[in-house]
Amino acid sequence: MLGTGTVGRTIAAKLAEIGHGPVIGSRDPVAALAVTERARPDVETLGEWHAQNEAIPVATFSDAAAHGEALVNATNGAGSLSALELAGAANLAGKVLIDISNPLDFSKGFPPTLFVANDDSLGEQIQRAFPALKVVKTLNTVTASIMVDPGSLTGGDHTLFLSGDDPGAKEQVTTWLRGWFGWRDVIDLGDITTARGVEMYLPLWVRLLGALGSPKLNVRVVR
Amino acid sequence: MLGTGTVGRTIAAKLAEIGHGPVIGSRDPVAALAVTERARPDVETLGEWHAQNEAIPVATFSDAAAHGEALVNATNGAGSLSALELAGAANLAGKVLIDISNPLDFSKGFPPTLFVANDDSLGEQIQRAFPALKVVKTLNTVTASIMVDPGSLTGGDHTLFLSGDDPGAKEQVTTWLRGWFGWRDVIDLGDITTARGVEMYLPLWVRLLGALGSPKLNVRVVR
Repeated sequence: MLGTGTVGRTIAAKLAEIGHGPVIGSRDPVAALAVTERARPDVETLGEWHAQNEAIPVATFSDAAAHGEALVNATNGAGSLSALELAGAANLAGKVLIDISNPLDFSKGFPPTLFVANDDSLGEQIQRAFPALKVVKTLNTVTASIMVDPGSLTGGDHTLFLSGDDPGAKEQVTTWLRGWFGWRDVIDLGDITTARGVEMYLPLWVRLLGALGSPKLNVRVVR
Repeated sequence: MLGTGTVGRTIAAKLAEIGHGPVIGSRDPVAALAVTERARPDVETLGEWHAQNEAIPVATFSDAAAHGEALVNATNGAGSLSALELAGAANLAGKVLIDISNPLDFSKGFPPTLFVANDDSLGEQIQRAFPALKVVKTLNTVTASIMVDPGSLTGGDHTLFLSGDDPGAKEQVTTWLRGWFGWRDVIDLGDITTARGVEMYLPLWVRLLGALGSPKLNVRVVR
């Protein structure tokens, strides 16, 4: 698991709960665990969270990537490429990366814009930077609690998308999404360029968040 | 009705069917009606269509706009601003414009990119260019046949979005969408800047079209 935020914590906790041995990777695990002030009042510090999840090690990006059979990119979109560089190309080669990141740019306030869009995507940037990695973009269109428990929203009757160049990796990820979390409706959009579609959906998602007042939302593709 | 394509024809035919008196506006109605070659084998020429819909006049943009109590922008996104200029600001002032256009750029092939996105939108460009017009962006997220008959897709259990600066215009349009076409789930996203969200959804829509093989699709917002 690359990334110590809510997404990384939520997925790692779920994987530990169902008997896997996740390791969370951080840019600087010692410093990250030593932070005592909450960034937001409702979000625990990493140290507070770790005290309740002691079985999940918090390591460097490199150690977490070396440990993982499968990798999850749960870093901030703006930091994803540098996190993967720190993880080290040799620790990534040949592995599946579930890429949850979104290229959100909050520098102009809320709602955010995207720092890459239209004729490129963050998923493609990652795939180009690490050609030996099997990037599968998914889960980036829902909030963390729904990623690991789609059934918590109207019984799970809604849709998740997949983008990636490696058919075997997409098949594997689909099996995990169903088995680990209970996703039922998973649509394979095509190669990694289709990540443009799901990343460009985020500007609609953030406005639905604004209009509905809760991140507990998703779309069901009706067809 | 501004625009003689499938969207304009489909909505005009539906409005005529339910007893309204739509007029379709074209850049050059005489030339448009004289075209004898189909652009696509499965799409009738405007003349063929008009022969079956004689009660619906095909006029200039300006005459159509002068005629309409309410206006619909069903032009190609790339031609929308010039169509509205030809319609004439005086014919637009104070009226509601249902803006269905999408800023699709096919110059690099399929799937298209967007010629405006991220920190602006076509809906906003239109609103800025014609401040006395009450622009309500909607219907741009579904194919023409579903716009006028949402019930034709799984009984109508899916969602439409609204964006616009004028609350009264949005209320009026919502009443029309329900009464004319039978839309049930209409979400008001907020002011016209939220058009960025629905326009940036199109890159996902075109990839869903590719993955599912049919434009008869929509999303239901599950919350």
